[in-house]
Amino acid sequence: MPASLAEIRVLAVDIFGTTVDWRTGVAEQVAAIAARTNLEVSPGRFTDEWRDRYLPALDAISSGAQPWRNLDALHREALDDLLDAYGVGDDFDEAARQELVLAWHHLAPWPDAVDGLSRLRRRYTVSALSNGGVALLTSLIKGADLPFDCLLSAEMLRCYKPQEQAYRAAADLLTVRPRQILMVAAHGWDIDGARRAGLRTAFLERPQEKGPDRTADRAADTVCDIAVSSLTELADILGC
Amino acid sequence: MPASLAEIRVLAVDIFGTTVDWRTGVAEQVAAIAARTNLEVSPGRFTDEWRDRYLPALDAISSGAQPWRNLDALHREALDDLLDAYGVGDDFDEAARQELVLAWHHLAPWPDAVDGLSRLRRRYTVSALSNGGVALLTSLIKGADLPFDCLLSAEMLRCYKPQEQAYRAAADLLTVRPRQILMVAAHGWDIDGARRAGLRTAFLERPQEKGPDRTADRAADTVCDIAVSSLTELADILGC
Repeated sequence: MPASLAEIRVLAVDIFGTTVDWRTGVAEQVAAIAARTNLEVSPGRFTDEWRDRYLPALDAISSGAQPWRNLDALHREALDDLLDAYGVGDDFDEAARQELVLAWHHLAPWPDAVDGLSRLRRRYTVSALSNGGVALLTSLIKGADLPFDCLLSAEMLRCYKPQEQAYRAAADLLTVRPRQILMVAAHGWDIDGARRAGLRTAFLERPQEKGPDRTADRAADTVCDIAVSSLTELADILGC
Repeated sequence: MPASLAEIRVLAVDIFGTTVDWRTGVAEQVAAIAARTNLEVSPGRFTDEWRDRYLPALDAISSGAQPWRNLDALHREALDDLLDAYGVGDDFDEAARQELVLAWHHLAPWPDAVDGLSRLRRRYTVSALSNGGVALLTSLIKGADLPFDCLLSAEMLRCYKPQEQAYRAAADLLTVRPRQILMVAAHGWDIDGARRAGLRTAFLERPQEKGPDRTADRAADTVCDIAVSSLTELADILGC
């Protein structure tokens, strides 16, 4: 174990991309709904373009340019916008749009996630720390049977990662110092935010996260305390 | 199952007294610390007097007379006050006081709790809904291996039960209507607050909660949708 991790008491684990495979699950739902409507689209590309609207939406809220909304609301706004961009807005009724937004509530974990988290829990308090809303995270964690000790949602914190306040609020609520938390995430922007807030960082490479046509974030481009390729590898390194 | 419960999707379960036996566990810690100091006291009675300061402290915050503090802070203030009342303030240093406050973080569940919650989770989303702080609840739930899907703390809601807003915030965060939540609690004041907020209510009798010298809240004195004597009985009735 790197010396910088000796003080760690809490693992704060990102969800979308890090723990669950959002792209495969959402694309499957898009494909199912597209088959019922006249949406001619690559489900993977549609899902990518939907997700592309995520970070700009967070920025607009974090900068104060827009009021707070939870992730379900942001997913819905981005979907409405995307369907209009495809010129198929009239073909998707309210029920279909709600169904698509709920695709984000039921996603499969990466194969190492349940085993890795179970092992990490033996030694650490393991909390989800996600920009997902409370209902979304609760559905996702229950459906995938992910063994978390705690669930910290941006919706409770009223603050989205990568704002430093999101990470500091997690430390305050769990009554540990920022450097006693190891943020585990597959995205450089999340690792960077955590590091700026004083947390320790574990970059978890998920090379398939963005599908075959795009390059996922890479450890080589990230400043972090430790880089791993699975939660079970992290458990190995931390002696769990 | 009573017809009024047919719509239930979420169980919101109180923790102290309802799920875990606070009095036995805290009294054991008081006894251990008293044995090391010159505190001549009945551990059970000391614990009762400590807990007696709980509802008045909540009232002072909920009325706006006092600023927000989490339950650890309220436990600490009540302890300081109680030790002064016993005239032994000088005999309890900072470390002993912190240790006593942490007694509330590690308590045994009632014997039916783990099995009952596990069964209820098969059919419902089962959330803790407690006035305990986030760190306290996380320690307690992890230590007792309680299988919750979600953890809603007054510290996140910035609002203590029995204020109606605490129950309504739980419904908002879980995106259900108040009447789709069944509040499960062993205290009449909690059941009353939940009912006023529009939730359904299950009164869970815990006759041993307040020890041998005091009478616990009774179903006969409570207006509720259903009364049970264990979480496994509730699972039976709800067909889980």
